[in-house]
Amino acid sequence: MGRLTRRTSITRYADGSSVTREDALAVEEPLEIRIDGTSLSVTMRSPGDDFDLVAGFLVSEAVIWSAEQLVSMRFCAGTDDDGVQTFNVIDASLSADTVMPDLSLERHVYTSSSCGICGTASIEAVHKAAHFGRIDDDTTWSAQLLGSLPDRLRSQQKVFDRTGGVHAAGLFDADGELLCLREDVGRHNAVDKVVGWALREGKLPLRGTALQVSGRASFELVQKAHMAGIAVLAAVSAPSSLAVEHAESAGMTLIGFSRDGAFNAYAGAHRID
Amino acid sequence: MGRLTRRTSITRYADGSSVTREDALAVEEPLEIRIDGTSLSVTMRSPGDDFDLVAGFLVSEAVIWSAEQLVSMRFCAGTDDDGVQTFNVIDASLSADTVMPDLSLERHVYTSSSCGICGTASIEAVHKAAHFGRIDDDTTWSAQLLGSLPDRLRSQQKVFDRTGGVHAAGLFDADGELLCLREDVGRHNAVDKVVGWALREGKLPLRGTALQVSGRASFELVQKAHMAGIAVLAAVSAPSSLAVEHAESAGMTLIGFSRDGAFNAYAGAHRID
Repeated sequence: MGRLTRRTSITRYADGSSVTREDALAVEEPLEIRIDGTSLSVTMRSPGDDFDLVAGFLVSEAVIWSAEQLVSMRFCAGTDDDGVQTFNVIDASLSADTVMPDLSLERHVYTSSSCGICGTASIEAVHKAAHFGRIDDDTTWSAQLLGSLPDRLRSQQKVFDRTGGVHAAGLFDADGELLCLREDVGRHNAVDKVVGWALREGKLPLRGTALQVSGRASFELVQKAHMAGIAVLAAVSAPSSLAVEHAESAGMTLIGFSRDGAFNAYAGAHRID
Repeated sequence: MGRLTRRTSITRYADGSSVTREDALAVEEPLEIRIDGTSLSVTMRSPGDDFDLVAGFLVSEAVIWSAEQLVSMRFCAGTDDDGVQTFNVIDASLSADTVMPDLSLERHVYTSSSCGICGTASIEAVHKAAHFGRIDDDTTWSAQLLGSLPDRLRSQQKVFDRTGGVHAAGLFDADGELLCLREDVGRHNAVDKVVGWALREGKLPLRGTALQVSGRASFELVQKAHMAGIAVLAAVSAPSSLAVEHAESAGMTLIGFSRDGAFNAYAGAHRID
């Protein structure tokens, strides 16, 4: 995992003195996403699982919802100043019947690692139509299991252990089994990588699953989970007003402040046993 | 501050039982930014200080760097389903000599996917030219003062106190005086609001200041501080590799893991006394 972390020299100030020592940084690099050669977006991300990121990004943007629509992905030639392949440009080809995203929307603002919809140039575009519709998933979840998900997620976070600098998203089934975990400097990217993994595995819509995330629950994270058909989104920190409103209208269960086995349900508490 | 928080009913699960009670949510709403009627971006933000947000966004995007370039800003007509003004669209007018942002990333990369240079075009767009150049600010900062900034920031966070759901950015001088504090559901917005306040007050470049933020230090936050001429960016959590690299090349001081009076310096430790 050399490319996921980088060593650096730091100066540590504590208790009135300072020492210089080595530390590990989470690597952050831009990824340009193209469709058939046309640039769609640039996102700041942790390198790795990039095909998952592209696939999940296209699901989140309501462009695709099945593996068949994603005909191919490949890293384009892209080199740094020393002529080394950067692996920072991916070109995807979609099936002929896929409706391309509207590239006339002003997207000159690159996609921020913490705000995936910056660059979408109309407020109407904030609300995207979910292919799988309102969530219709009557799987029930034990409160005890839901309360244990943050620790289950945390115990698997390898990059966080070394850098403290990445977010995580973990997909669980109702038996508490971890189906997929992705870490990224951007919390939206971590979710996109999980969703992209599911698309490529032919698992969409993700019935009977809960997505546990390490940060807060914003509108965008709720929308990404909705696009993938995930019934339960759980965050360790607070949800926003729009996150709660969207979870309610999408028929989802939204959990926040999930810490030390306790949590709040902000929507869809009927799924909790 | 009724519009910054919203009451909601939640179900709290803890210790094997559940109770329903009221809780406060941080309000999140989209803001569409237009320039002379043309839509530029939509960002999810906490309502309030929206003119600061727009001004700071334009500084971060390297479009403007002085108050004179920002001729006017106004809320456009925008109503919800009940016909109530939403205050979610702002139209800005810039001075005639301002170079408008390129609204089409695609224009530069609309060529064959086999051309590696095309990818460079948009990825290099991530690095924006800073009007104020490399940071040349020899203000020195006491380690004790820098270590106290997170607590000084936290003590002023009014919305966080009620929701636990917002980030903050605070601008301090070398005497520890808080010059400007902004809270937002998006940490990038909080910084843009501080920078926009400074632009509108005629304070750019912000010599002799340090910006303390509540979250991690990403490349983008370093770049935003650089655009505003801020010499010191301090975060309570981890920086990314690209954040450190950009701080070094910009001549900035970058501080991370600033907690309980101790912190790490990742770049520019020469400013710390």
